[in-house]
Amino acid sequence: MRSLEICLSPELIHLHDLSGKIVVVVDIFRATSTMVTALANGVTSIKPVEDLESCKSLAGNGYVTAGERNGKKEPGFALGNSPLSYLDGTFDGVRIAMTTTNGTVAIERSKGSAEEVIIGSFLNLQATANYLLQKEASVLIFCAGWKGKFNLEDSLYAGALAALLQYPSDCDGILAMETLYYQTKEDLLGFLKKASHAKRLQNFNIEEDIDFCLTFNRYDLIAILVDDEIIAKKIPTNA
Amino acid sequence: MRSLEICLSPELIHLHDLSGKIVVVVDIFRATSTMVTALANGVTSIKPVEDLESCKSLAGNGYVTAGERNGKKEPGFALGNSPLSYLDGTFDGVRIAMTTTNGTVAIERSKGSAEEVIIGSFLNLQATANYLLQKEASVLIFCAGWKGKFNLEDSLYAGALAALLQYPSDCDGILAMETLYYQTKEDLLGFLKKASHAKRLQNFNIEEDIDFCLTFNRYDLIAILVDDEIIAKKIPTNA
Repeated sequence: MRSLEICLSPELIHLHDLSGKIVVVVDIFRATSTMVTALANGVTSIKPVEDLESCKSLAGNGYVTAGERNGKKEPGFALGNSPLSYLDGTFDGVRIAMTTTNGTVAIERSKGSAEEVIIGSFLNLQATANYLLQKEASVLIFCAGWKGKFNLEDSLYAGALAALLQYPSDCDGILAMETLYYQTKEDLLGFLKKASHAKRLQNFNIEEDIDFCLTFNRYDLIAILVDDEIIAKKIPTNA
Repeated sequence: MRSLEICLSPELIHLHDLSGKIVVVVDIFRATSTMVTALANGVTSIKPVEDLESCKSLAGNGYVTAGERNGKKEPGFALGNSPLSYLDGTFDGVRIAMTTTNGTVAIERSKGSAEEVIIGSFLNLQATANYLLQKEASVLIFCAGWKGKFNLEDSLYAGALAALLQYPSDCDGILAMETLYYQTKEDLLGFLKKASHAKRLQNFNIEEDIDFCLTFNRYDLIAILVDDEIIAKKIPTNA
């Protein structure tokens, strides 16, 4: 029987057994939202890289580099971590190498024993749910968090996905976040704007990024890790 | 200005700066509920001990020993981890040495840099809030969790305490748990009985322990760590 669990922080992932499971990595503000947007706008693949120097060294080797730390674009990288950067129609066939504060760390830590690693965002929530529902495997939702701590936006995404999957779960985090999601979904944007990281980003004048990352079901694809790079797979969503 | 934050697991405590703060350690099922009950029923002091052998060695040295692992009383200890054990009127002046799966670990990890360490439970929620409101210090609620993972009962206690304190907070965990507490408080017992650890304990036929641990404001004392032992302090509660 398929089950569902949540890991609230990369610092807790060692407590979970990933074997045979599909891991859904989520970093709503903004790494995984940006990855999904990039793939929906022509990008061929995204290579997640944990550290800045390794990522930067891929520039010129067939990759365009994207680098972010603490919410800001890093010097020496072509792109930062804004999904809006990928909307101008110039990314067809481009391969991206990306490093971010939290999201790429979580992706690195999911590799290995998991059956599959996919990338979640509100932008492709229904497509991701549809994909998982076709599979037999149990699911672990892995929240990137903020520097190791719990964050609201990734956890509420988990609640939203749990509400769509309705898998049995004896995981308290799922029970908490699904309940919280039902309570807040009528004004999810308003509630999530109270989150500490949303406030942090608002200080950088990137309110548009936040609104974009909190758009539901804009794209009908999943983002899946294959041979160390994330690629898109079209999924029908008639939701 | 006083602030409020939450640590959801002992595995995350290194991410928090405890200095100058009052740490409220909570392990609702059942370590901290049991400690508060013991102190309210005549016990003079409780020495929290991380490992079984050190705890057991204190038997006869002026201590009665209490030992629990995985929800069950350990062989060789006088007491397990049930608050009900302390209600028979035979504990006046007794000193307890206690080791439990999660709670005593969290207490050990709070020592050192914190301004004060106190022990929380629903049984003395209002007394604890009143005590904190008299103080100038910021507060960190430290959930013992279950073997490193998030649990529902400790986190919802944090939500309940946050609702009483109303301190400003930029901590996403506080925002999430306070909101969840408001949603579930009309049937907190029903909701918390869905928690994985409550189910685990129900399997051991200790339903009475669960109901007892979820009683609000039975005792008007706080439990505070002084010189490595937890003692009671009377607090007026006219709330």
